[in-house]
Amino acid sequence: MIRAELLTIGDEILFGQITNTNAQWMGVELANVGIRVIRHTSVGDNAQEIINALNDATHRAEIVLITGGLGPTKDDITKHTLANYFGSDMYENQEALAHLIAMLERRGRQLNALNRLQATQPVKAQYVHNAIGTAPGMWFDKPSDANQPHDAVVVSMPGVPQEMKRMMTDIVIPKLVDKFRPQTIIHKVVRTIGIPESDLAERIASWEDALPQYIKLAYLPSFGQVRLRLTGTGDDRALLEQQLDDQVARLVPHIADYVFATDDIELEVAIGQMLLDKGATLATAESYTGGLVGHLITSIPGSSAYFQGGIMAYDNEVKIKVLGVDRQLIIDHGAVSAQVAEAMAVGARKLMGTNYAVSTTGIAGPTGATDTKPVGLVYAAVAFEGGVVSVKHQLLTDRNLNIRMGAIWTLNLLRKKMKGLV
Amino acid sequence: MIRAELLTIGDEILFGQITNTNAQWMGVELANVGIRVIRHTSVGDNAQEIINALNDATHRAEIVLITGGLGPTKDDITKHTLANYFGSDMYENQEALAHLIAMLERRGRQLNALNRLQATQPVKAQYVHNAIGTAPGMWFDKPSDANQPHDAVVVSMPGVPQEMKRMMTDIVIPKLVDKFRPQTIIHKVVRTIGIPESDLAERIASWEDALPQYIKLAYLPSFGQVRLRLTGTGDDRALLEQQLDDQVARLVPHIADYVFATDDIELEVAIGQMLLDKGATLATAESYTGGLVGHLITSIPGSSAYFQGGIMAYDNEVKIKVLGVDRQLIIDHGAVSAQVAEAMAVGARKLMGTNYAVSTTGIAGPTGATDTKPVGLVYAAVAFEGGVVSVKHQLLTDRNLNIRMGAIWTLNLLRKKMKGLV
Repeated sequence: MIRAELLTIGDEILFGQITNTNAQWMGVELANVGIRVIRHTSVGDNAQEIINALNDATHRAEIVLITGGLGPTKDDITKHTLANYFGSDMYENQEALAHLIAMLERRGRQLNALNRLQATQPVKAQYVHNAIGTAPGMWFDKPSDANQPHDAVVVSMPGVPQEMKRMMTDIVIPKLVDKFRPQTIIHKVVRTIGIPESDLAERIASWEDALPQYIKLAYLPSFGQVRLRLTGTGDDRALLEQQLDDQVARLVPHIADYVFATDDIELEVAIGQMLLDKGATLATAESYTGGLVGHLITSIPGSSAYFQGGIMAYDNEVKIKVLGVDRQLIIDHGAVSAQVAEAMAVGARKLMGTNYAVSTTGIAGPTGATDTKPVGLVYAAVAFEGGVVSVKHQLLTDRNLNIRMGAIWTLNLLRKKMKGLV
Repeated sequence: MIRAELLTIGDEILFGQITNTNAQWMGVELANVGIRVIRHTSVGDNAQEIINALNDATHRAEIVLITGGLGPTKDDITKHTLANYFGSDMYENQEALAHLIAMLERRGRQLNALNRLQATQPVKAQYVHNAIGTAPGMWFDKPSDANQPHDAVVVSMPGVPQEMKRMMTDIVIPKLVDKFRPQTIIHKVVRTIGIPESDLAERIASWEDALPQYIKLAYLPSFGQVRLRLTGTGDDRALLEQQLDDQVARLVPHIADYVFATDDIELEVAIGQMLLDKGATLATAESYTGGLVGHLITSIPGSSAYFQGGIMAYDNEVKIKVLGVDRQLIIDHGAVSAQVAEAMAVGARKLMGTNYAVSTTGIAGPTGATDTKPVGLVYAAVAFEGGVVSVKHQLLTDRNLNIRMGAIWTLNLLRKKMKGLV
């Protein structure tokens, strides 16, 4: 098993000024080529901390991937720290300089003394081209020694996610695969919604107990959903694929109503596929979710084939004037009610001329609660040819959590309607 | 300086199945009470890896905060690993059991053998109540010894973000402050948009060079924005606050047009505040951003005071029928044009009766490009009393990046209009 460690550099990570999403992406991409990430470490912009972490990491793993600290400003010290660590002089790399000048020109900017430093590279590093940014990466080979029983590779990349991803995909991963020829790891993911983790575990206990040693199962819960991840390890990719597919086929019947995908795709992707399969179109009418349902739907490439548009009906007058909700309905039942949710969905479907329309109305919080309607009370509705159906949920007290959870439950109602479960 | 390390446990983190957002939140909250996070480490569900990481961490830091691996399923091993590490027997905690039964009842579920295990606790740990979840936390004291020159505290918490946050806020942070009485660290953040990091650095170089030793500056770029973070360390909180405020006051004039906040708030919060200050209202008309502008605006508590609603005009028919865009305008200029962006904004402002309306139209990709209009070409417009203004941007090739970046640029156009910069 080829092991990798991820080392993230930057005070901004430790102080929590930014979230480390690079490590997540790298974990997925490395697993896909059979390289197992055994540890992430994040340290600050401090040379001694970086060196200590690098020493430990190279002793445990064949591959150490560093991100961050390559910017042009004074708090970015990764390059010089690595040059010192590997005992390397610096030089100005002409390929890097030409690319830097071209990148700056495209942005209408000039070379200056500060950004020119980005073309300086350690002599002992292989230059790694940054196709979409100005800070190059560096690839160092670190041969085995008394403390390190294996040859190691240390690669330094920018912390900017899109630059790092492009560099990994185009250059670093192919080079790592070529050098280490890793064993095959395959993941399969079954996505469920609407069933708690421990109920799920009880339902599939007999299946889980019968799993072979070379397949591991993990439960990954988030936002009313549980991902079931099967990880298989072996030498024969085709055989392993077949064995995992067989296990998924045995698993799904235990929990069929809750499974929305047997791939690691989001609910909005699964719903887009269902709409495409039916040749159906969708509109939205959102109150408390304020556009998030539409945003989730339209984040999917090709969604213009089924998504016509939507109304963010935040104010009651918009519900009445644009969606055609009867004013009396709002007076009688309140804007947060099953009746208004259903009228919104019906109104959006009519306005947009779609096969389906979903709606949301609720109290996201922190304000807006009444004596009878607490924060977190939300309704979703789906209008379809010949009718409309709605559900009520009592969510929690956090505004953004309620908005996100509510958008997901709304999409799940649409899924259930399309599958004939409601 | 009181040091903390964060230790995250779970194969799902290493495989990249989930992003570690807990570490980010914890970094902020600990910094706020003067505890400095010096390292994050993530390891898999492997007892030896956990013990090694825990040993290293307690030798470097007074505080080790562990998240993850406390769930009821077989892949969660943190509790037993910690019990072994501290040489502790287990018992069933009656407070935990009563709370567990109450939590399950509220969710309409039954106690079973699997979830009952969550009430089992190590004898040597102090029980840490989980107000909104079923897995309790554990607080261990680890006195100094030959390898560890300081007393250390090891706290284990659930990986579910909202449960961990509640536990930290209510119990763990107050207890840590009480025990360690940390030195004061204060952060001030100045948020900028529309100026690249290296240009910013050149503009503020003289100010930066004159900063005193006890104040550090960091540049944190993301999505067309750069956060400038000043970190001050000292003993006298009031004095330090004053010194940082003075530095911010000196900094801002160098870059006034680009600064949207002198607090660490998002652009949509700053815009909400500007709208409130003006007593103005806002509507949106979104094409390629598909609801994200509305979602950003309505993610802010109290946004119903200024946000009336919006139209997601994905399909051209919605632009024409709902927003009143002239069909001929679309035929003459295409839906992705300054003319249509402006007509959408004007139409939304009229429909919703607001002071301002913003609009977006563009080609998010990967499909939709034409000979003259590449992927990433986007327009934003702002309609206001007496007129409308639009801007064009050429973004990149990634759909979701374009949607996010485009929504931010659109909000920035609104900011510039309200500040009289366009």
